[in-house]
Amino acid sequence: VNPDLASERQTASFSVESLTAWLDGGAERTRMRRAVVEAIEHDPTFSRENQYFQSQNERYEAAVRKAVYLQKKMHEMGWTEDGPEYKYIYRALAGDVAFLLHRIFMRSISMLGSDKQIAKWIPLASQYQIIGSYAQTELGHGTYLQGLETTAVFDTAAQEFILNTPKISAMKWWPGDMGRSATHTVVFAQLYIHGKCYGIHPFIVQIRSLQDHSLCPGITAGDIGPKMSFEHADNGFLMLQNVRIPRENMLNKFCEVQPDGNYVRWGSQKINYFTMTTVRISLISDEVVVPVMKACTIAIRYSVVRRQSKLKPGEQEAKILDYQTQQEKLLPQLAAAYAFHFINDYLQELFNRAYEEIQTKNFDTLPELHAFSSGFKAMVTQYCTSAVEICLRACGGHGYSLLSGLPSLYTKIFASCIYEGENTILLLQTARFLIKCFMAASTGQPVPPSVTYLAAGKPGKCPAQNKLHFLNPDIYTEAYQHAAARLVSSAAAELQNLIQSGVKKHDAWNQCAVQLAQAAKAHCHYITVKNFAETVEKLKTQAGIQKIMKHLCDLFALHGIFSNGGIFLHDGYISGAQMDMVTASYLDLLPVIRKDAVPLVDAFDFTDKSLNSALGSYDGQVYQRLYEWAQKSPTNKQMSPAYERYLKPLLQNKLSKL
Amino acid sequence: VNPDLASERQTASFSVESLTAWLDGGAERTRMRRAVVEAIEHDPTFSRENQYFQSQNERYEAAVRKAVYLQKKMHEMGWTEDGPEYKYIYRALAGDVAFLLHRIFMRSISMLGSDKQIAKWIPLASQYQIIGSYAQTELGHGTYLQGLETTAVFDTAAQEFILNTPKISAMKWWPGDMGRSATHTVVFAQLYIHGKCYGIHPFIVQIRSLQDHSLCPGITAGDIGPKMSFEHADNGFLMLQNVRIPRENMLNKFCEVQPDGNYVRWGSQKINYFTMTTVRISLISDEVVVPVMKACTIAIRYSVVRRQSKLKPGEQEAKILDYQTQQEKLLPQLAAAYAFHFINDYLQELFNRAYEEIQTKNFDTLPELHAFSSGFKAMVTQYCTSAVEICLRACGGHGYSLLSGLPSLYTKIFASCIYEGENTILLLQTARFLIKCFMAASTGQPVPPSVTYLAAGKPGKCPAQNKLHFLNPDIYTEAYQHAAARLVSSAAAELQNLIQSGVKKHDAWNQCAVQLAQAAKAHCHYITVKNFAETVEKLKTQAGIQKIMKHLCDLFALHGIFSNGGIFLHDGYISGAQMDMVTASYLDLLPVIRKDAVPLVDAFDFTDKSLNSALGSYDGQVYQRLYEWAQKSPTNKQMSPAYERYLKPLLQNKLSKL
Repeated sequence: VNPDLASERQTASFSVESLTAWLDGGAERTRMRRAVVEAIEHDPTFSRENQYFQSQNERYEAAVRKAVYLQKKMHEMGWTEDGPEYKYIYRALAGDVAFLLHRIFMRSISMLGSDKQIAKWIPLASQYQIIGSYAQTELGHGTYLQGLETTAVFDTAAQEFILNTPKISAMKWWPGDMGRSATHTVVFAQLYIHGKCYGIHPFIVQIRSLQDHSLCPGITAGDIGPKMSFEHADNGFLMLQNVRIPRENMLNKFCEVQPDGNYVRWGSQKINYFTMTTVRISLISDEVVVPVMKACTIAIRYSVVRRQSKLKPGEQEAKILDYQTQQEKLLPQLAAAYAFHFINDYLQELFNRAYEEIQTKNFDTLPELHAFSSGFKAMVTQYCTSAVEICLRACGGHGYSLLSGLPSLYTKIFASCIYEGENTILLLQTARFLIKCFMAASTGQPVPPSVTYLAAGKPGKCPAQNKLHFLNPDIYTEAYQHAAARLVSSAAAELQNLIQSGVKKHDAWNQCAVQLAQAAKAHCHYITVKNFAETVEKLKTQAGIQKIMKHLCDLFALHGIFSNGGIFLHDGYISGAQMDMVTASYLDLLPVIRKDAVPLVDAFDFTDKSLNSALGSYDGQVYQRLYEWAQKSPTNKQMSPAYERYLKPLLQNKLSKL
Repeated sequence: VNPDLASERQTASFSVESLTAWLDGGAERTRMRRAVVEAIEHDPTFSRENQYFQSQNERYEAAVRKAVYLQKKMHEMGWTEDGPEYKYIYRALAGDVAFLLHRIFMRSISMLGSDKQIAKWIPLASQYQIIGSYAQTELGHGTYLQGLETTAVFDTAAQEFILNTPKISAMKWWPGDMGRSATHTVVFAQLYIHGKCYGIHPFIVQIRSLQDHSLCPGITAGDIGPKMSFEHADNGFLMLQNVRIPRENMLNKFCEVQPDGNYVRWGSQKINYFTMTTVRISLISDEVVVPVMKACTIAIRYSVVRRQSKLKPGEQEAKILDYQTQQEKLLPQLAAAYAFHFINDYLQELFNRAYEEIQTKNFDTLPELHAFSSGFKAMVTQYCTSAVEICLRACGGHGYSLLSGLPSLYTKIFASCIYEGENTILLLQTARFLIKCFMAASTGQPVPPSVTYLAAGKPGKCPAQNKLHFLNPDIYTEAYQHAAARLVSSAAAELQNLIQSGVKKHDAWNQCAVQLAQAAKAHCHYITVKNFAETVEKLKTQAGIQKIMKHLCDLFALHGIFSNGGIFLHDGYISGAQMDMVTASYLDLLPVIRKDAVPLVDAFDFTDKSLNSALGSYDGQVYQRLYEWAQKSPTNKQMSPAYERYLKPLLQNKLSKL
């Protein structure tokens, strides 16, 4: 181990092993996770060794190979889909595995299909006798599902639906696993019966032959080509021309087309969006928080190995993590990784409560769940994408090399801001809920406990009198609450004003959209800070860990006030003098947390293989590994044909040496 | 042309052709630029058609091919390196061409070499009889040049320098054109004579044979492997083991080692950094501003073709550019593209003045030039990288496809924040200059005119009384000036305080670094706003253009205040009520500029080939082009071997249709 890195581990103010166990939810789970990771990583089938050198085709092949062998591996290891090990497998594979949309195909059948449909399709799918995809997005429509143009017309005589792509913009575009793998897909289409449109519904459609994988009649499908990342995924396009499917292929847990064309519904139309809601929540941990934790691990370890320039003349060059500017880049991202790990727990709980109710066909909590899953998906993905970007940039040139592992983390997490709902649209959905609740609360109607604070919004002043007061969670949580409530109420007032001055309701909404999105973000930021503070508060028993978590919570909160000063200063809730106290407390925290920075990322417990980074390995042998890995690049395998073709004719008549 | 895009061009408030001519510096230059672009784009040798599908090896080959054929093309067209057409060639090639570091090799010889050295090397290099690189950065050292570890020891007996890479961290790492192409390179190494170190100096070293391109004795070199972008560039590594070069190979315009080992210097040691200063300024236009202009063109054209959701129920779906949130994303980036186009002119002028002085061996303006080139390089690259990111994200999923052209613009401009000096380090260099000037100005000493405002910093209030006042350039320029002066003076005060309380000077500097970097950024932001306002002011003759430029200038300025509210609210210079006026004026400007958004990007005058974007073409045939291009992807060329190997065994025993 590089001595500069080793020395960082001597002085941890807490037990790394205990922190890991706490993050995992107990030492037993840590053991299980490690066993799963070890089983996967020691199997060469799942190696990611040459990943950074592979073409899109090679990465697709590797991803399919891994997905298929995973079935065998699970059988061999005695892991089941319901078992406790299951959730660690994806983390162990570190992402590049096929058939994630196949899982969403299965999930949508389980949620939206009848018992009969589940009994027919799920066993086939779970053994890969069929491979499914989830075809919702079209070339011309993403977030606005009502605008989807694919049609499914019920033919009473044949007892079939006839599916069509009426124009190019209606082509399904983006669905994963569809470009080259899927045999089946859930297609969302506008249902027409006797010429009347009943809105979008999900249909199971076979697209490729199970004998030779050729496209079925009426189907045009393929891969949409290269993307900024996800080289391993065969995101696809799909055109349907008079494709007929039996009546039984419409997913009909909540509604049905009866043989005579009669349409019956038992649940909310909104339940069709429920798959998306679950996906939004479930992606936060693996697709968003884990990448940030990895990026922090890589960047922080590198920053104590890298020495550059001198803090004092005559001394040895300093570790770059000893520069305040480097601390100010990385440590808030580390704090955010923890903050969002905890918000993920919070959302999971919210989801579990709602899911139980939905099982009893009670849809009352859907609006709150939808608003929260939307807003947090937007806020967390945006924050974390920016966090990974900061980590990458903080590693300078070497961060920019694929061998650092950071560009692939970054280009992948970047997509999370776009998929499963564009973030601005999602924030506006949250804003709509907040405005409704604010209106309701203002007139004394009941609102969910998470938003009762909106009613209490009024002018006030932050009571802090010195910089230490800003290390009191009540002080900063209150400030966030005040700011969120102010932004919601002032957006509501602005809306009111516009409407009263004669602007149509929809125009008024659009003219306030920037401020509404800002208010929704402030609400999510507030809940994140509050939840972090409460998590730390609950941690009474483990003093060493509680102390460092308290520092991280303070840092997360004060960084947010420092970086968004305008929101807090605007109405004088925080004064300029108090902002100087915030800045002082914030900057004071940096060297404190810096001391524990390496143990804090060690506690995330990533193996070298899962980081796949020349900069971030546990042993800190950064330069050796960069050199060793670079030599394996295909660009060094042989002399480029460019030499013979283009350079030799120019250079050849010279002496070998000038 | 897509009718939604066509209609946007009917209502331009100004002549697009006149704006283009003004941006080019006259209609004559526009004609010349177009002729160059046409000559290049009509030559299939320079095609970028399959760029998004190519491997790193293929892109390298294409880049070399283009660089070599370019010589012929120039001869054929009568273009010379000193001719007026030259600067349009790179823009026409749209980037992916080899031997840019070869140009920097030549530039460093021209600047740092004696007349004799220039006479020997430049003719060889300009005909590609040799290919050069510029080997400064090492594995262990980037920005901190004094820390470079490569050594060059003078051997008096042999009249040679002996170059060595004493350890792995001293390996040269990153130089472009070095991994596979270069035969020679300028190596920066610590000069030792009779055991005494004289600091870093540039040496010309041959690294590959001119007969068979094999590595020269003592040389280990190769490609550093895949990066986040720049697939076409062979960034390389280089190790030197007792490589001997003649005494004449040290570049000796400003200093020389005489035959007896006597060291003579005529210029400032800092002149060695001058190549970097010129590169920092010269990269702003082609590498930073042009990509932002392209990204705006793509995103804005797409945003009037893309219709999604409804502004009013019952109406047609709306163009996404009609949503306030989309305007708020894109239009400030458009304004920034113009702002930085003008700041580039400003910096070019500054550079030309300084360069003339240096020719006469007067180095007085170097500090100011260094401070400005550093700060603006940092501020402009960071702002513009974020601008391209916003454009990409504003195009949703389709933006994320490589076929949009946006990911390659983004991953490439991203590097500009890292190369040629890490941005934070650069901002701190600017801050050092500002603090010095502030101190000097405070004690009445003369300072350059650009920073005299620092002396005038004092408490005050913004005089604006309604939102229209914030459309007065004096009002907002003053606000920026006040904020910059306040941040510089308060960082200076904080430094003073720390030092007076006993903190060592270097520690104090580090403890203020976050605030110092913020102050430097505020200074550059202020100069950018001021320069934009002055440019608009000078534009008296062309009323239509002046009007829309005034709107863009207002938008750029108010967006900055809106987004960095804390800086302006902090000392009450702008009150909360005034910030509401800023917000109102800012949001009011969006629909005004939105009307001219398409003409404003049309005026950048990019050809479809140079945009190479399925989303951004002049005709707006977005969906058709995405579909057409996707079909060409190698992922659609044949069935993947993954089917036969992994999927068929699972699927094969089934009926073709379920």
